[in-house]
Amino acid sequence: MTKKLEKQHLERIDDLKRAGLRIYQNPAFFCFAVDSVLLSWFAKTRPGDKVVDLGTGNGVIPLLLYGRNSKVTKIYGIEIQEKLWELAVKSVALNNLQDKIEIILGDLKEAPAVLGSGFDVVTANPPYRKKGDGRLNPIPEVAIARHELLTTLEEVVATASKLLKPRGSFYLVQLPERLSEIFVLFFNYGLNPEILLPVQPKPEEKANLILIKAVKGSRKKLELEAPLWIYEKNGEYAEKVRRIFEGEE
Amino acid sequence: MTKKLEKQHLERIDDLKRAGLRIYQNPAFFCFAVDSVLLSWFAKTRPGDKVVDLGTGNGVIPLLLYGRNSKVTKIYGIEIQEKLWELAVKSVALNNLQDKIEIILGDLKEAPAVLGSGFDVVTANPPYRKKGDGRLNPIPEVAIARHELLTTLEEVVATASKLLKPRGSFYLVQLPERLSEIFVLFFNYGLNPEILLPVQPKPEEKANLILIKAVKGSRKKLELEAPLWIYEKNGEYAEKVRRIFEGEE
Repeated sequence: MTKKLEKQHLERIDDLKRAGLRIYQNPAFFCFAVDSVLLSWFAKTRPGDKVVDLGTGNGVIPLLLYGRNSKVTKIYGIEIQEKLWELAVKSVALNNLQDKIEIILGDLKEAPAVLGSGFDVVTANPPYRKKGDGRLNPIPEVAIARHELLTTLEEVVATASKLLKPRGSFYLVQLPERLSEIFVLFFNYGLNPEILLPVQPKPEEKANLILIKAVKGSRKKLELEAPLWIYEKNGEYAEKVRRIFEGEE
Repeated sequence: MTKKLEKQHLERIDDLKRAGLRIYQNPAFFCFAVDSVLLSWFAKTRPGDKVVDLGTGNGVIPLLLYGRNSKVTKIYGIEIQEKLWELAVKSVALNNLQDKIEIILGDLKEAPAVLGSGFDVVTANPPYRKKGDGRLNPIPEVAIARHELLTTLEEVVATASKLLKPRGSFYLVQLPERLSEIFVLFFNYGLNPEILLPVQPKPEEKANLILIKAVKGSRKKLELEAPLWIYEKNGEYAEKVRRIFEGEE
């Protein structure tokens, strides 16, 4: 009981700095991070698009996508963890976006059965690490978000492919170390990588994230973009990233 | 006859700026380019290594690898085009390196039958473009070096895998647009990509080359390096690339 109260106490509402949007967070088990902000910037939607975000957490990606393009028809988020789903549902209501954003409680691989196909855009910021790769976080919600305990990269890619219409776009953020596996899975599930954007902590450091756009059934040649970096050498946010965070880019 | 004389006339000897090495070139049908210089820098050999360069052209990669490490046991180059093979053989003799470098005339896929396996390092700067992808160069030797007319990326990868010993290293230079195909082929032929180094024309431009190290049977995680760029924004060679060209790096 004390612990429950404590968790409720930690819950807070943060400003998303985009179109007045706000979001419920709870540092006891889930706060969104820079990777979700970058993915929401990287993922391009058009007016009228139907979108699904796989493993939506507290719904940050649907909210930020809506913040960038309020003319989408509908954004679905699917989340398997009830506590995170609750935060997401509350955030949607807080912003009065129930007609635009719907958060579904369930396993992402059930999404095609529930939602059908024909989606224009699918996004995913899935767990980065395989089961057994490194220590699990002691907080179960964090462990499930970081390690492939309840899903796998193959399930994410297969589900994205099923949800998308022909020429629909899949936007993924992952670790560079999984790039080869990602490309093999894309090949197996009919997704063609069109853009690879490395993200580095600083200008001359190795990438620690990758943003990838893949298009279902396309034959366009892959473009390997110049990297984005988060901090300049002096430790301050890079101007471009600051603009992304502020919604100016 | 006139044409033949003209071609002989164009033949020249260039300084490789490395350990006094020189190389025969003929601008009528083959001169090496920056990609081969970068690959020779990127490919790491150890004393005692046995090395094969697939599709060696005028032998520039074997010569530059030897220039960086004269303690290799042997470097083989294999080249299918007789005119290029002749240039390479003459360059090896010019440098008195017949005991260290051997250039074989033949199809690279015959290399495992001719040379066996157990090699420490394999390098390849193969044709970048598939048959039918863009216009063929009117000079047949150039067309064969640039387009997959006499080989394919799959043959190159399969051959490299056959030649290498377990944990042997394959170093490849290619276009970014072929990265996905490369990773699928690596997966199919037991090569694990360990390093991906993008090469950009300038600091903020998309990559136009990729350098990849793959290791046979390894499980090491891929590292995506910060890009190398050839020119600074002011059009001058980047300091790092200048040092690579001069053999100082």
